[in-house]
Amino acid sequence: MNYKKQLEEYFKEVDIRCVLGLSIDCVIFGFYDNQLKVLLLRWKQTEEWGLPGGFIYKNESVDVAAQRILEERTGIKELFLQQFHTFGEDVRYNRQEISQKLSWPDTSSRQWPDRTVSIGYFALVDFSKVTPTADFLTDECRWWDVEKLPSLLFDHNHIVAVALRTLRVQLSWQPVGYNLLPEKFTMPELQRLYETILNRPLDPRNFSKKMRALGIIERLEEQRKGGAFKSPYLFRFNKEKYEKALQEGNLAFS
Amino acid sequence: MNYKKQLEEYFKEVDIRCVLGLSIDCVIFGFYDNQLKVLLLRWKQTEEWGLPGGFIYKNESVDVAAQRILEERTGIKELFLQQFHTFGEDVRYNRQEISQKLSWPDTSSRQWPDRTVSIGYFALVDFSKVTPTADFLTDECRWWDVEKLPSLLFDHNHIVAVALRTLRVQLSWQPVGYNLLPEKFTMPELQRLYETILNRPLDPRNFSKKMRALGIIERLEEQRKGGAFKSPYLFRFNKEKYEKALQEGNLAFS
Repeated sequence: MNYKKQLEEYFKEVDIRCVLGLSIDCVIFGFYDNQLKVLLLRWKQTEEWGLPGGFIYKNESVDVAAQRILEERTGIKELFLQQFHTFGEDVRYNRQEISQKLSWPDTSSRQWPDRTVSIGYFALVDFSKVTPTADFLTDECRWWDVEKLPSLLFDHNHIVAVALRTLRVQLSWQPVGYNLLPEKFTMPELQRLYETILNRPLDPRNFSKKMRALGIIERLEEQRKGGAFKSPYLFRFNKEKYEKALQEGNLAFS
Repeated sequence: MNYKKQLEEYFKEVDIRCVLGLSIDCVIFGFYDNQLKVLLLRWKQTEEWGLPGGFIYKNESVDVAAQRILEERTGIKELFLQQFHTFGEDVRYNRQEISQKLSWPDTSSRQWPDRTVSIGYFALVDFSKVTPTADFLTDECRWWDVEKLPSLLFDHNHIVAVALRTLRVQLSWQPVGYNLLPEKFTMPELQRLYETILNRPLDPRNFSKKMRALGIIERLEEQRKGGAFKSPYLFRFNKEKYEKALQEGNLAFS
């Protein structure tokens, strides 16, 4: 079966099995080599890149659908995905242009409505723990520097920008490093993560003071050995205090 | 035209003019008498309360729809509504039960799909500046104490709970008092607002220190006169600094 035929079959199945007019897009951030990356797919037989996304089965919650879609499209399993925004502009992109770029079959007989509202999810993952793999719709799946993204399909540049803004805002009140750093880390390592996401330098003394004032990380007696500099102390998140602070919804004013 | 007939006409128009399977729900918080309130509607000829909500026209963005719906259903205009979460569980409520409670006409011939995904918006308003009015679907529109809500229609108790959690979390990094307090306010007034939303007491010295450390409020030379106690200084938000901090997405780590 050639690709165009496969696409036709895919669309047919989507119209029958899925919630019409709704989609999900996933922005997967990775942290590596002091760079913030985002995971993109290259659509089959094109040079066009976009986010991993898909549709919701009729009897499936959108949260479950987001997990399934991410796994089907990239091979990444059991990731903590967070819903961050629903994109509901009446015209999100030029449909005809997309259809041409991706050489889509004639879709005029589809049941799908004229507009699609997309629910955005994002996650921050340990770059080294995932092995992205392309699916039947795509030729390639790989990480891109957030600062050097190509022009993406649909409104995906906008979706990445909103996800990034959300991530930066959350950094002010949520220790996002929690899932991203090893169990034990040094203060400079934590600071580098924050600096990369915020894309600007932070003052080490202030940073350390503020992080410790949150009361959710604790200094261990161990030190990191073997570096060229003075051995820095190791820290870890106090999971209990962290969960409690999050539940009270109030890290900055604890 | 009786109410049942009106409802039938309303549903018919919704199916023709609106995006199928999607709705909007608005959680409007008000602050009055040291109490956090939420605006609810009582459905016509029932004792059933729910949030103001409605549907999106086919050529209308969801943000614009949210504003329009709120105005149509409560008379409140030009409110800054913020999208906070999309409710996409596969079964959000018992449809038959709702239909019975609200004495809905037979809806089996409707084009509307079996499930509705709802996009939640919330706002925090100056209680004294709005005059809620009931629309043709409802008999009454009034404020309820957040702590004393009745059992609401659909999954609206859950929606209010998520909005409240979001509000509390945002309080950690956003000066939500900005739209809610008079232009000039005292530190104890600001603190009472925070305490009400967080539903717990805060230490006055710490609170004042933290708020001022954010660098977004400034002390005026004026004092509030006429109280029984020592005249407190007046403060105001510095709009420019506030906007800048919000854009940088980073109030806590400035």
